[in-house]
Amino acid sequence: MSHVNKSAHPFDKGRLEALLSRRFFYAPAFEIYGGVAGLYDYGPSGSTLQANIIAEWRKHFIVEESMLELDTTIMTPAPVFETSGHVARFADWMVKDVKTGDVIRADHLVKNVLEARLAGDKEARGQAAAPAKEDEKDKKKKKNKTAKAAAVQLADDVAKSYEVTLAQLDNFSGAELGELCRKFNIRNPDTDNEVTEPQEFNLMFASSIGPTGQHPGYLRPETAQGHFLNFSRLLDYNNGRVPFASAQIGRSFRNEISPRAGLLRVREFTMAEIEHFVDPQNKSHPRFKEMRDVVLVLLDRHVQSSGNTTLIKMSIGEAVEKGIIANETLAYFMARIYLFLLKIGINPDRLRFRQHMSNEMAHYATDCWDAEIQNSTGWTECVGCADRAAYDLTVHSARTGHPLVVREALKEPIVTEKEVPEFNKKALGKTFKQDAGVLQKHVESLDEAALSKLKSELAEGSTTIIIDGKTFEIAPDLLRVERKTFKQSIREYTPNVIEPSFGLGRILYTLLEHTYWSREQDVERGVLSLPPVVAPTKVLIVPLSSKEEFDPLVQEVSSKLRRAGIFSRVDDSNTSIGKRYARNDELGTPYGVTIDFASVQNKTMTIRERDTMDQRIGSIDEVIATVTDLVEGNIDWTEACQRLPAYDGVQAIES
Amino acid sequence: MSHVNKSAHPFDKGRLEALLSRRFFYAPAFEIYGGVAGLYDYGPSGSTLQANIIAEWRKHFIVEESMLELDTTIMTPAPVFETSGHVARFADWMVKDVKTGDVIRADHLVKNVLEARLAGDKEARGQAAAPAKEDEKDKKKKKNKTAKAAAVQLADDVAKSYEVTLAQLDNFSGAELGELCRKFNIRNPDTDNEVTEPQEFNLMFASSIGPTGQHPGYLRPETAQGHFLNFSRLLDYNNGRVPFASAQIGRSFRNEISPRAGLLRVREFTMAEIEHFVDPQNKSHPRFKEMRDVVLVLLDRHVQSSGNTTLIKMSIGEAVEKGIIANETLAYFMARIYLFLLKIGINPDRLRFRQHMSNEMAHYATDCWDAEIQNSTGWTECVGCADRAAYDLTVHSARTGHPLVVREALKEPIVTEKEVPEFNKKALGKTFKQDAGVLQKHVESLDEAALSKLKSELAEGSTTIIIDGKTFEIAPDLLRVERKTFKQSIREYTPNVIEPSFGLGRILYTLLEHTYWSREQDVERGVLSLPPVVAPTKVLIVPLSSKEEFDPLVQEVSSKLRRAGIFSRVDDSNTSIGKRYARNDELGTPYGVTIDFASVQNKTMTIRERDTMDQRIGSIDEVIATVTDLVEGNIDWTEACQRLPAYDGVQAIES
Repeated sequence: MSHVNKSAHPFDKGRLEALLSRRFFYAPAFEIYGGVAGLYDYGPSGSTLQANIIAEWRKHFIVEESMLELDTTIMTPAPVFETSGHVARFADWMVKDVKTGDVIRADHLVKNVLEARLAGDKEARGQAAAPAKEDEKDKKKKKNKTAKAAAVQLADDVAKSYEVTLAQLDNFSGAELGELCRKFNIRNPDTDNEVTEPQEFNLMFASSIGPTGQHPGYLRPETAQGHFLNFSRLLDYNNGRVPFASAQIGRSFRNEISPRAGLLRVREFTMAEIEHFVDPQNKSHPRFKEMRDVVLVLLDRHVQSSGNTTLIKMSIGEAVEKGIIANETLAYFMARIYLFLLKIGINPDRLRFRQHMSNEMAHYATDCWDAEIQNSTGWTECVGCADRAAYDLTVHSARTGHPLVVREALKEPIVTEKEVPEFNKKALGKTFKQDAGVLQKHVESLDEAALSKLKSELAEGSTTIIIDGKTFEIAPDLLRVERKTFKQSIREYTPNVIEPSFGLGRILYTLLEHTYWSREQDVERGVLSLPPVVAPTKVLIVPLSSKEEFDPLVQEVSSKLRRAGIFSRVDDSNTSIGKRYARNDELGTPYGVTIDFASVQNKTMTIRERDTMDQRIGSIDEVIATVTDLVEGNIDWTEACQRLPAYDGVQAIES
Repeated sequence: MSHVNKSAHPFDKGRLEALLSRRFFYAPAFEIYGGVAGLYDYGPSGSTLQANIIAEWRKHFIVEESMLELDTTIMTPAPVFETSGHVARFADWMVKDVKTGDVIRADHLVKNVLEARLAGDKEARGQAAAPAKEDEKDKKKKKNKTAKAAAVQLADDVAKSYEVTLAQLDNFSGAELGELCRKFNIRNPDTDNEVTEPQEFNLMFASSIGPTGQHPGYLRPETAQGHFLNFSRLLDYNNGRVPFASAQIGRSFRNEISPRAGLLRVREFTMAEIEHFVDPQNKSHPRFKEMRDVVLVLLDRHVQSSGNTTLIKMSIGEAVEKGIIANETLAYFMARIYLFLLKIGINPDRLRFRQHMSNEMAHYATDCWDAEIQNSTGWTECVGCADRAAYDLTVHSARTGHPLVVREALKEPIVTEKEVPEFNKKALGKTFKQDAGVLQKHVESLDEAALSKLKSELAEGSTTIIIDGKTFEIAPDLLRVERKTFKQSIREYTPNVIEPSFGLGRILYTLLEHTYWSREQDVERGVLSLPPVVAPTKVLIVPLSSKEEFDPLVQEVSSKLRRAGIFSRVDDSNTSIGKRYARNDELGTPYGVTIDFASVQNKTMTIRERDTMDQRIGSIDEVIATVTDLVEGNIDWTEACQRLPAYDGVQAIES
């Protein structure tokens, strides 16, 4: 399996990053201008990998569940985000170095400093860190040069309080973060200067629309509002029925305070978001039974609030029954997210679902589980799965006056009976003149019990009502109270929204970490074991030499693969086959076919499998048929080996 | 063929727009907030149509030619666009109404007013407009209510001067546009007020990056700069070889002055751009021979400059030979663009390539041809195909000091000989002390002829050189001039760039116009004859009633189609089959399959073809196999009819 790290060598982030840069998976945007923090460009390998992940996402979610795809604008007029709450609340806490003015995100500062001190403490105690922790520490030394990991032993209670603080970190307000900085004497590790009190910084990029600057606008920080604003049109497209889901893949922007974590925290990123609209009274899911037995690793909010991180393994069926996951629909999507991540090659042993703590949730959410994937920086939120309840539709409807509701014909009309006052308006006017209206209003506002009482009084003759000290003597000919039947055949409600939201860049980067390893014989020979479904190139075509007599065969193989829908590239560069295969391993291409002199004579071709370096031989058409089945997932390499005999030239070529 | 308008009714833009809104192809963004001009959201039909056009584009260009895909950021720091010239020059001319302050784009104002006057002139002369012209006029009346088309006859020379002005419109500077407004008394048609002199308005949206606002940035108005800035990495990825092409599909932004033309002029749009890097000394294309005989309709710049719009039909082979199209690579891409547009359903009779006039070209281009497609607003630029020469790479390289060049090993080294001075530095220092440097510099700057002269003088003994009035007496032991041989084995050059640039929204809208028609029996029954390759849904599954006994069959058909890779939707709404098919015709779904009581009993299914309304019947598996072949383009409807017998229930269902 691709997620099993075959490497005999410990994970080396520096080597992976060098590979990703060398093979242009991605690179800092505007690199020749010195770059801008948090902006990255994807090169041919990265953008094709991303396009393949998106294609699989579309198949797994949109096609499989007939979701309604949307493509809405990034540029958004300010009133939309005023209503949604983003203008007021979509902010992070930042502190400034009191002397240099350098800006640091407050929670990241606390995290980095406390983690570094705990690492120093471990070192001072001479504790051998666990292998996973070792990676973590390695990385800290390299990336966060600034967070000092001096080997200083901490008092036991201090170390414990750091650990509790870290487990609750996402739950602190700005004031609390400021408090922590003072309490723990947290300073800017770059300069050892104190930092200011945390201030809020809104993460939306601002601009203005139109030639006279009259329309302030923001770049969206999520695609979700585009779904909500189009709700009525989507509902109509779906013939007025709920539940249904809309889906959108697109760019969003967050003006992060001081991004330093590569693709894991960027200012511009591609998201894939689903908004599943559901009846608030019925959050069951029609296909839940298909997913019931999927087992997930969960970290719920009670565990975290008690200051630890114990994981539990449980089927989603059980988790819903026990009330750990709030409802079927939320759980269904968590299982579908899990299956998707596995399909593209994420290691299931490094995947967990963490529930948000109450203060941590976005302002619009009522429950939220993050799919967190472990990488060299720790556990990283890659997919959020939130129940936004009716928040967004309600606020946009209130602001615009446009009803964002479902009107559902009731199968059984709801029949109710109630007492209704009926006035003899003419007689009423004659008797009470300008006070008639006051009386009428008063009687109409009476509740069921009061009306019943009035009814029985009138049945016995005239009665008296006092309103604001004024006495009304009412005869039965002026007012009758009658029992009437009412039939309600339409139910009107604001649907709730379950939102799975994918950060594709984070998934892509973590996938690269999970699939990277080095060959035993040479730590420099890196391999990316990307599954064929997402690998940027499926087949490398390698002509043994650049002799012209190979050209027609290269053309033939290339066009036959293209017709089979398999994306291939030719590598006819002037280097050895071994070097070309090594480059290819770094690019994550699962199969290579070699055209040599025997190919020209016998119409044969060899095929090489990336992870094992096995080579097999067959006729050109056999090899193409086999590689097509491999790429489409119809067979695995073991089955391919039953079709094609081993090729003996292997060792010579790879050495 | 889909591009043949089958309609017995004249094209009705209002009806098409109502259909596109009703079926949520697209709608104004933020509609419930009142909308913002130039911003549109794509609904399920529109976004899937766009995704299919993009998938076909990727196949036709990226896969077919092994282009290097990129995905670069939208947010761009200001220095990049200062260098590229966009900060100074990416602007349109706007005028303001002198009283209301309303802002209008100057060239659009001139165009609308003059066209309206010419239309009024025609009307006054009682000329029946040609059918194509009639559409144009209809639309003017509806959309540009403001541009008065009063039936006023113009003097013959005035009408002629209007026509000449319109043919040259794209060629005028701001001052010239102001001149035209005064000369022809052009006013704001909404108010009849005069307008100001044209002012430049930069079309880029501005923002700032980072928490302290220290990095001004712009949203890119094209994806191209992202390609250029990554040139060195791309070249490296391509093993240092040229030619190669990069490709990118992504969002760009232009803060248009007063967009009013629906999807044809928007502030945020998806582009697909190719940058083909080529040796400036050799703009031939290796696959030109495959395209040589493709015949295009051309409107060259000389024809336009002479004030008319005569089209010529010519193979690209001939056009390159005659120098009408500058080089093979430009012509090759024009042919490939043409084939792509036909494949997705554009009517070739309404497609032409127009060459830019000299003043009209973007600041970076040396030659440019637009693929213009005719729609109800006239001829619209949908694809630009420009030769940007070495402009961009040169300016970015100069600004950053980063070489953006190709270093090519020469097959035959270039051997040159020249005279080289050799100094006896020690003796020189002794003789001339601090003046030795001045002498050496002077001699090194001498040209070949001067060095030869010096050489022969030295051969005869000492000689004298005067520099800035100072005399140097040089003995042969101080300086020798020798003939030496130089071998240059590397050629270093800045490649040129051929750029095909697609505006996907314009293509999408025009395609909808080209494929829209109404059934003869009922003008309200609109059909979008989208080719299967781009149709949002390929097959509609229609259960005759919502009886539960149909559910397993619906599931079976649906999952079999999914496995065959065919995107289908189920329509089980509570309306008649006829109404469901009518909705489906509006959505452009090419095939419908109906599951009825016979299906449950006999495992048969009917299939309906959208354009002809023909219905055929067969076993469920036969129908699925046939529809798969139809969607994949392996067979056409005539062939499908040979496989499946006619179904007699047809008329009953459609009536």
